[in-house]
Amino acid sequence: MNFRSDNESPAAPEILAALQEANSGHAYAYGEDGITAGMRDRFRETFETDLEVFPVATGTAANSLSIAQLSPAYGAVFCHHEAHLHADECGGPEFYSGGAKVIPLSGELAKICPRTLRAALSKMEEMGIHESQPSAVSLSQATELGTVYKPDEIREISRIARGGGMGLHMDGARLANAVQRLGCTPAELTWKAGVDILSFGATKNGAMAAEAVVVFNNDRAAGLARRHKRAGHLFSKMRFMSVQLETYLKDDLWLQLAGRANRAADALSAGLGRLAGAQVLYPVEANEVFVKMPPPLADGLKEAGYEFHLWPGSRDHYRLVTCFATRVDEVKVFLALARRLADGLKAGELAKGLDGS
Amino acid sequence: MNFRSDNESPAAPEILAALQEANSGHAYAYGEDGITAGMRDRFRETFETDLEVFPVATGTAANSLSIAQLSPAYGAVFCHHEAHLHADECGGPEFYSGGAKVIPLSGELAKICPRTLRAALSKMEEMGIHESQPSAVSLSQATELGTVYKPDEIREISRIARGGGMGLHMDGARLANAVQRLGCTPAELTWKAGVDILSFGATKNGAMAAEAVVVFNNDRAAGLARRHKRAGHLFSKMRFMSVQLETYLKDDLWLQLAGRANRAADALSAGLGRLAGAQVLYPVEANEVFVKMPPPLADGLKEAGYEFHLWPGSRDHYRLVTCFATRVDEVKVFLALARRLADGLKAGELAKGLDGS
Amino acid sequence: MNFRSDNESPAAPEILAALQEANSGHAYAYGEDGITAGMRDRFRETFETDLEVFPVATGTAANSLSIAQLSPAYGAVFCHHEAHLHADECGGPEFYSGGAKVIPLSGELAKICPRTLRAALSKMEEMGIHESQPSAVSLSQATELGTVYKPDEIREISRIARGGGMGLHMDGARLANAVQRLGCTPAELTWKAGVDILSFGATKNGAMAAEAVVVFNNDRAAGLARRHKRAGHLFSKMRFMSVQLETYLKDDLWLQLAGRANRAADALSAGLGRLAGAQVLYPVEANEVFVKMPPPLADGLKEAGYEFHLWPGSRDHYRLVTCFATRVDEVKVFLALARRLADGLKAGELAKGLDGS
Amino acid sequence: MNFRSDNESPAAPEILAALQEANSGHAYAYGEDGITAGMRDRFRETFETDLEVFPVATGTAANSLSIAQLSPAYGAVFCHHEAHLHADECGGPEFYSGGAKVIPLSGELAKICPRTLRAALSKMEEMGIHESQPSAVSLSQATELGTVYKPDEIREISRIARGGGMGLHMDGARLANAVQRLGCTPAELTWKAGVDILSFGATKNGAMAAEAVVVFNNDRAAGLARRHKRAGHLFSKMRFMSVQLETYLKDDLWLQLAGRANRAADALSAGLGRLAGAQVLYPVEANEVFVKMPPPLADGLKEAGYEFHLWPGSRDHYRLVTCFATRVDEVKVFLALARRLADGLKAGELAKGLDGS
Repeated sequence: MNFRSDNESPAAPEILAALQEANSGHAYAYGEDGITAGMRDRFRETFETDLEVFPVATGTAANSLSIAQLSPAYGAVFCHHEAHLHADECGGPEFYSGGAKVIPLSGELAKICPRTLRAALSKMEEMGIHESQPSAVSLSQATELGTVYKPDEIREISRIARGGGMGLHMDGARLANAVQRLGCTPAELTWKAGVDILSFGATKNGAMAAEAVVVFNNDRAAGLARRHKRAGHLFSKMRFMSVQLETYLKDDLWLQLAGRANRAADALSAGLGRLAGAQVLYPVEANEVFVKMPPPLADGLKEAGYEFHLWPGSRDHYRLVTCFATRVDEVKVFLALARRLADGLKAGELAKGLDGS
Repeated sequence: MNFRSDNESPAAPEILAALQEANSGHAYAYGEDGITAGMRDRFRETFETDLEVFPVATGTAANSLSIAQLSPAYGAVFCHHEAHLHADECGGPEFYSGGAKVIPLSGELAKICPRTLRAALSKMEEMGIHESQPSAVSLSQATELGTVYKPDEIREISRIARGGGMGLHMDGARLANAVQRLGCTPAELTWKAGVDILSFGATKNGAMAAEAVVVFNNDRAAGLARRHKRAGHLFSKMRFMSVQLETYLKDDLWLQLAGRANRAADALSAGLGRLAGAQVLYPVEANEVFVKMPPPLADGLKEAGYEFHLWPGSRDHYRLVTCFATRVDEVKVFLALARRLADGLKAGELAKGLDGS
Repeated sequence: MNFRSDNESPAAPEILAALQEANSGHAYAYGEDGITAGMRDRFRETFETDLEVFPVATGTAANSLSIAQLSPAYGAVFCHHEAHLHADECGGPEFYSGGAKVIPLSGELAKICPRTLRAALSKMEEMGIHESQPSAVSLSQATELGTVYKPDEIREISRIARGGGMGLHMDGARLANAVQRLGCTPAELTWKAGVDILSFGATKNGAMAAEAVVVFNNDRAAGLARRHKRAGHLFSKMRFMSVQLETYLKDDLWLQLAGRANRAADALSAGLGRLAGAQVLYPVEANEVFVKMPPPLADGLKEAGYEFHLWPGSRDHYRLVTCFATRVDEVKVFLALARRLADGLKAGELAKGLDGS
Repeated sequence: MNFRSDNESPAAPEILAALQEANSGHAYAYGEDGITAGMRDRFRETFETDLEVFPVATGTAANSLSIAQLSPAYGAVFCHHEAHLHADECGGPEFYSGGAKVIPLSGELAKICPRTLRAALSKMEEMGIHESQPSAVSLSQATELGTVYKPDEIREISRIARGGGMGLHMDGARLANAVQRLGCTPAELTWKAGVDILSFGATKNGAMAAEAVVVFNNDRAAGLARRHKRAGHLFSKMRFMSVQLETYLKDDLWLQLAGRANRAADALSAGLGRLAGAQVLYPVEANEVFVKMPPPLADGLKEAGYEFHLWPGSRDHYRLVTCFATRVDEVKVFLALARRLADGLKAGELAKGLDGS
């Protein structure tokens, strides 16, 4: 069983069925088709506002295009040092923007600390033209550690961004999980809290390959159609991309799928937290569980066929990710095994302790 | 009925069925899955050589990545002025390469004229460092006018490229149509004729959204994995991209699909060539028919629901494109109407002639 | 004697003297010094308007920065195919702009033909987002063939540019020669005729290494200070750059220097035009003379120590360039030799003719 | 008196005299002149090896070109977080390289800590293609805090760089100060210790505007001539750039000038260190003195006309920079005043202390 990443999950059956249905005869290319028009409307309805939406097939593309819209080549973009934008895109934002600087910041629970942001901004402003122009802040929602920003937290970051003449980007690769968890509306978590451009993710949560750049602030949309095209993300048979997004949003499918992933994560977290010698590291606010456990326990689970990642740079921090397809009964089987292994280990240690001295 | 572009065709049922089948459970992300490994083997088998293959979702991406591999930022790339690379990618190759110059050349039937290429190369070399470094030549196979390069023609271009220290790229958005038409092997039309990097197209010929950068010359592959990633073309759920390509190549499906498109184009061309007042403009060597016809005839066809493009910059040159889904019986119905309309127009003109003076 | 290029001329003594004078003690760096402030005022006075000025050391830098201001990365820039911007900057504008396309146009006497420009613009607009966004037109004043645009001609190009939403750039590497020749004011030849950004040249006409980007249209200046810095053209000891420009403009030194070069070119042109077998090819409107002459005549002159270039791509078109340091008496000596050689060649040919048949 | 920066110093009289002398008649452009050839030889002689040298007018240009040679667009470059490369070039290296990532590292005394470098490298390698490719390390010699790397320290960094497949760059904006201070040869501090490319500085130490990219490793020079040209740093009247560098190196002028600056810094440091309430913060190994002193003392000095910078981000850390033109007797006068002010402040504080309680 795979807890490595929601990236490795299948596509939701609803989405594959919609693809099949969209495959009837010819359709105008490059987004001039009816399915794409409907998808655009669906986004406007979901976010309760006018907006522009540009489908892409990867989060790297969504993030990089977003940053290129918010930052000139001579600009700087602030984000948390754990953010995908900085640590996992192989320099995509730098490439798309023509060499903007991505400035990694520290902060608890993978969230940008407002004070740190203010200090970094002020230091950069002090340097004048010898430094890049502060241009954007990027938040990950949910974060790389599976935590979420509450609307108030986003608004605070937004105020700092505005004050420094910067735009606000949200990397919403797991936005569905955050929306479902917080129980607020998509609008409240994005444009109403000050987000200008959103990387909207669907792939991790049931699409085959579908993300989107969503621009809430029309002033930020100029030129995006051409950037999208020249970067190779304007699909000729756009309907197949659009139908994934349309189906994803329709009847709140996205939130239902995220709900399943979140509930599986809750079950996982509760169980792991009760294991002897294990400790859940961060609040589980989306579909990721970070757990510190003895490597022999992890090894035992892996030998039994369970897959999950050791967190880079650590020795005993493990990440387990659930998805819409993770069944709670499977989680229970996993936890039962974990319990047996943990208890066995503990007994062994006790035994060793008894033997040893 | 849509003759506008093979871009607007549906996906082949075989490919959608394969997608469905690939959707079983989790699979490793970013191309570490088994389907992707199989797809790579299939490419090596099809082209009878070792090679590297990087799936992408658009031809713009394939072309732009290819050029960035062959040309440094300070390089120049020669292509025909009709080539997509120059005229339809919104500056994609310039973006990906960091500002290489694309130099448009003239030539009959949308094919680069070797003499023109030699002269352009020699002029650039004469300028030394005041001009960009000649770095690549790009051929479109089939061309934008539906003609094809024969292996000998490719080899001649290749020799000039080699002589000038340049790499050779082939934009194979319609490679299947060319291979099927020429009856030679994919190898003979590509690396055996000197092609270093190929943009392999499948979307226009039955895939949903699947192209690939194929590198025959290993010396040209360095860094491509990272360019691919940072440009946002490394799919997390790669299996869904790979399975399209795998299915496309399996059992020569790609050539069967192209054969249908080519035969429909032949039927179309033969019929249009016999119309009063119409003239087929170029040899039909792939699945595109360019026809000069009186605008009233074109208008009549459009009123009847047939769709096709007036060629940009012209008044009475029309392009009709067939695809794997174009049925010869539909073509016959279309031609019958065309004949009636053309005869009617001619009679009208005769009548006007009789009336007029 | 060197007629190869005004690039190879010395610096004017006035300018070297001013450098010496500027070298007293410390001065604030990066343009915060008093000499730089004075230089800025001098530019405003000379061009009779408010403006921004950014000194650089090469014409390539001036042109490339200007284009990056006028064109986004996804833009296109139109210029004459002979323009330095296209043919001699090794892709500088493409680099600075992040991959804008430079579109070379044809036109008599190295001047953009308005009709050709209109057609190219309209073709590009028709392509929509599949092509780059028309963003700028660039004129060379004087042109690469030593001709000049009159204010009316600039205004016509400017109207087309405005109509297409484009900015207008002037490459004024030899602006002094044009202003002096036309007898109009610098303002009339630039912003009053619609120029937004000017590459102002001084190096060819007496400076040591001093050019400037001059922005007449404040809307076009945003971000230029940072582009200038990050490209490595913000000099720490700016006073030494500024004092060259200040001295160049003061008391119309620039026009006096250009006047000498122009008069020497006139003398050269008049003399060459009278040579047997020679023909001056274009109107001499600045300080360049293009002459068609028998290669043996050119060879004889070169053997006598005179240096000048064969025009790239030609067999018997030669370019001779004068400068502020070219003395008319030296030109006379040169012409006397040319006359003797030409007459000798003619006599030889006559003799050969008599012998031959 | 100006202790703000050696950037604000005048040019050395020897260099201005050489400029004057170089201004005789025409000379071939773009570096084909004899002075430039001589300058190249002088560099080879000074560094006791074959090498390539490309003059530029700013340190930003030298650093940015160097990085673009060492790192592909998808590469990463490690440097100290205080390095100019990261903190003062407005993203120049990112621009020139096409979007490489500059990764700031911590380390005592503004020097890269080898252990930190190894950890950062290893973390990046672990990420594979999801992160940029480790491509270069850049050292500042002398550092931003006026300290220097000893040959052994450079070799250690070099070994780590080599081991990770990276090139080694040295930002030698103040190389002369380091060479003079350490008493080793230029070769020992650069290529013999593993440096591949050097930004050679002369402007801060007596030139008007002259730096150079020096490539010791021929494999790293490919394409640099064109990068240099297209970025606008290939001067037409190159002799005026070259003669500055030639004169700077001739008869060890550069080391004599640096010696004066270093000795003045020593005098300054010794005197400031003895002031009541003041503390010299770092070893003075070049021509910069960092001193912590009470702001009222700094204010008093400024009121008397002395100029120096408060270090960004600090409240009472001040930087004083000397240069070749700083006279030791002037330093003495300054110190005498400082002493009087410091003693006065101390007396006042004592008085306050007596009053206060």
